[in-house]
Amino acid sequence: CSLTEKLSNASSPNIIIMLMDDMGWGDLGVLGQPSKETPNLDAMAAQGMLFPNFYTANPLCSPSRAALLTGRLPVRNGFYTTNGHARNAYTPQEIVGGISKDEILLPQIMKKKGYVSKIVGKWHLGHRPQYLPLKNGFDEWFGAPDCHFGPYNSSIRPNIPVYNNSEMLGRYYEEFKIDRKTGESNLTQMYLLEGVDFIRRQTEAQRPFFLYWAPDATHAPVYASKPFLGQSQRGRYGDAVMELDYSVGHILLWLKRLGIENDTFVFFTSDNGAALTSGPNEAGSNGPFLCGKETTFEGGMREPAIAWWPGHIKAGTVNFQLASVMDLFPTSLALAGLSPPDDRALDGLDLTPVLLNHPHTQGNRPIFYYRGNELMAVRIGQYKAHYWTWSNSLEEFNKGINFCPGEEVPGVTTHDQKEHTLQPILFHLGRDPGEKFPISASSHEYQKVLSRISPVVEQHKSTLVPGVPQLNMCDVAVMNWAPAGCEKLGKCLKVPKSQPWKCDWPH
Amino acid sequence: CSLTEKLSNASSPNIIIMLMDDMGWGDLGVLGQPSKETPNLDAMAAQGMLFPNFYTANPLCSPSRAALLTGRLPVRNGFYTTNGHARNAYTPQEIVGGISKDEILLPQIMKKKGYVSKIVGKWHLGHRPQYLPLKNGFDEWFGAPDCHFGPYNSSIRPNIPVYNNSEMLGRYYEEFKIDRKTGESNLTQMYLLEGVDFIRRQTEAQRPFFLYWAPDATHAPVYASKPFLGQSQRGRYGDAVMELDYSVGHILLWLKRLGIENDTFVFFTSDNGAALTSGPNEAGSNGPFLCGKETTFEGGMREPAIAWWPGHIKAGTVNFQLASVMDLFPTSLALAGLSPPDDRALDGLDLTPVLLNHPHTQGNRPIFYYRGNELMAVRIGQYKAHYWTWSNSLEEFNKGINFCPGEEVPGVTTHDQKEHTLQPILFHLGRDPGEKFPISASSHEYQKVLSRISPVVEQHKSTLVPGVPQLNMCDVAVMNWAPAGCEKLGKCLKVPKSQPWKCDWPH
Ligand SMILES: [Ca+2]
Ligand SMILES: [Ca+2]
Repeated sequence: CSLTEKLSNASSPNIIIMLMDDMGWGDLGVLGQPSKETPNLDAMAAQGMLFPNFYTANPLCSPSRAALLTGRLPVRNGFYTTNGHARNAYTPQEIVGGISKDEILLPQIMKKKGYVSKIVGKWHLGHRPQYLPLKNGFDEWFGAPDCHFGPYNSSIRPNIPVYNNSEMLGRYYEEFKIDRKTGESNLTQMYLLEGVDFIRRQTEAQRPFFLYWAPDATHAPVYASKPFLGQSQRGRYGDAVMELDYSVGHILLWLKRLGIENDTFVFFTSDNGAALTSGPNEAGSNGPFLCGKETTFEGGMREPAIAWWPGHIKAGTVNFQLASVMDLFPTSLALAGLSPPDDRALDGLDLTPVLLNHPHTQGNRPIFYYRGNELMAVRIGQYKAHYWTWSNSLEEFNKGINFCPGEEVPGVTTHDQKEHTLQPILFHLGRDPGEKFPISASSHEYQKVLSRISPVVEQHKSTLVPGVPQLNMCDVAVMNWAPAGCEKLGKCLKVPKSQPWKCDWPH
Repeated sequence: CSLTEKLSNASSPNIIIMLMDDMGWGDLGVLGQPSKETPNLDAMAAQGMLFPNFYTANPLCSPSRAALLTGRLPVRNGFYTTNGHARNAYTPQEIVGGISKDEILLPQIMKKKGYVSKIVGKWHLGHRPQYLPLKNGFDEWFGAPDCHFGPYNSSIRPNIPVYNNSEMLGRYYEEFKIDRKTGESNLTQMYLLEGVDFIRRQTEAQRPFFLYWAPDATHAPVYASKPFLGQSQRGRYGDAVMELDYSVGHILLWLKRLGIENDTFVFFTSDNGAALTSGPNEAGSNGPFLCGKETTFEGGMREPAIAWWPGHIKAGTVNFQLASVMDLFPTSLALAGLSPPDDRALDGLDLTPVLLNHPHTQGNRPIFYYRGNELMAVRIGQYKAHYWTWSNSLEEFNKGINFCPGEEVPGVTTHDQKEHTLQPILFHLGRDPGEKFPISASSHEYQKVLSRISPVVEQHKSTLVPGVPQLNMCDVAVMNWAPAGCEKLGKCLKVPKSQPWKCDWPH
């Protein structure tokens, strides 16, 4: 078929996945940000394919990233917790666990076809030595294992290290400045240079490459470099977006300069919805969608997404395929001419037919919305059924942590974990993208739709084998006291005695 | 200057104002509608200039339309009521009043330069004989004086007449079908044909023309013609949008076919925000903005807006100028080489320098948000100060009328009319387009901004001379019982005895 021909002609294209941090669906001009500050991303969409129905696998950084690199739901790949019901767990530096050695990561398979892989930016799949990128298939790394929270007092909590490959180069707030007051930091510029340098080196060496470009400037504390600070209409967050947009444009420009734009598949997306609780100064926009990061409402899990591959993907197209960050795993493998592992369940879908044979779509593909160990909701076609609803606890809410500021849908944005398995709350996301008008349970439409959704959910639940949860245990002794390379730099800190505890995941 | 040259070269371009009814800012693909169903409007924006900060003068049909055609705030041109405080009044068919004879309407002035003017669609400035379009400067009219509510029992309430020029052709739900069950109606197709026919006739006759194209398919009851029904991802409302988008594309195509695209200035906008209370089936989207129609939050008054004039307006530009539907009055006059009346206060701004000399903008231009006789809020730059807040009364809300479904901003979306004149609620619309995070009144930012806004408000209030309110009196005798032309058609109904009362405006 034409697809096979196209693929063989393309002969293992380079692959670049650009993953933003906490950037919302509504942060792109092409997706309705009123300040229209992303000319490069808008141009990327005009030259590529926009996916308005693209989802993350979890509304939080670590599990989302683990899902991207394994093609599997966090509940399968172990990036979840059983310490509480339906809790979002991630990898703060006191976490003991990380990506399981039983998981197969994308770059590990890509190696078989000679791909050289680099991650630039945030890893977030565990910071202990065995969990780091170079132990998990990547050939190169410039970035940090954890979020850039801080600064910390080194006797209580070390600052997060920044690595160059397998050794630390320094720490955030020490060698790698982030000015909490002004918001100034040069990190995005460094990530841009590291990405471009990698692309140039592999192009010169004529090796196919996989670049996982994961800057974190739009995650609180939000930062931008001096030339971008104060440039946007919406404060520091918009400044960070403008710098990322500039960087995306710069990378695409380099692909053209190097003459490899027809040989490089680029995909842009974000790891979870905008963190509205950081609003208004350090939060993005989820456009018309309900709530944000940490929730399984659309605002938490619908992501901006653009595929770009001149000469292969039809320019200026909008594809309504329901798709997921997990699809990037089998899709990247298919582009490289590789098969996914056949010894495990995969949740990702190979999108190459959808990408290359527009307007082909794969119907009936469900989207599962998980929070920790619980299936909170399911989308099939335009319908979304909520089996559990939860924004966050009233206790947290009263402390000022609000995942749905200014939004309140009675019975939907609940402050207790509310079960609806006997009568799921149903929305039509076409007519009602904001999840504000539940469809009456007594309507014919409800009955008809539920009879389509229920078997899919039952099938999913009955065949799902949860992985061993990796995010249950915490310990101060595992923090980044003495990362590899600290000796050379004189940056090792004293490791305290081990005192493991069950991590507390409040939401 | 270059502007003058350009204008003299353009020598009185044709002017088309396309005014949608209750279409929301977020209904356009280019402004973030997830179903991306407006390829023609998106192309119009790509070929023209997009105004993300464009406002109506009032969050309801009639006053908005009166403001467009007079260039003046409804509180000046009389399209408001003093029957209650801060009430939205309009022209239902029991209204006694209409556009005052003391007002000067755009087509009346355009005549001086030989422009032929036609209105296609909804008039809404009064339905009694003296208030109709042909008595107020228009040379032609195809459409109706009021909303297409109905069907009515002719003994209690007549159905709304559809006029061809100065005589009725029939009535909605009678000769002009709207199927309330299926949503089918051919009205948009008729409006399209009427618009194109007018354009072709004037082009052939080489007369400059002003077309005010005002279809109402996106106002409840929402309708579309058969080929469009069921085509969108979001039900009947989306179908209506698709047909309007198709029609806009078709009109622009005709301008090109006729070779007059460089001689025709086209402006697309809507009369007020999406009517969220009709959601989800018959309401549009206000994107990330708060609340909708009837309110002075951004969702009620921020409008989609595109200017298009190939060869004159730079293609693909985004202009952040704060602008208003009232600006179309002096702007159209300037384009035609005419001066606005100098015997009255005008609220509109001539946008020609902004349109033609991109990226020129006019700073410090305030936007006033009125509800009836009250100045509810003001925007200057990125800041908006609310002096009064009100969504709708608790009594109405409890009856299911909700102008802010799923949204609740404490102290902001108030159910009683709440005065804040001593300490206005302040938002930064760049950082916080959704009006969810009031700026602390004790902050330096608040003090600084208020000291800029307060004098503007004081100046406005102290110099404002309210017009005589035209929307205070109602009477069943004035309804459309016997419109001109009814005799010929045998469509006259018996006029009941006059029983005037003070109209009740609940919100
Ligand atoms: Ca994140
Ligand atoms: Ca309207």
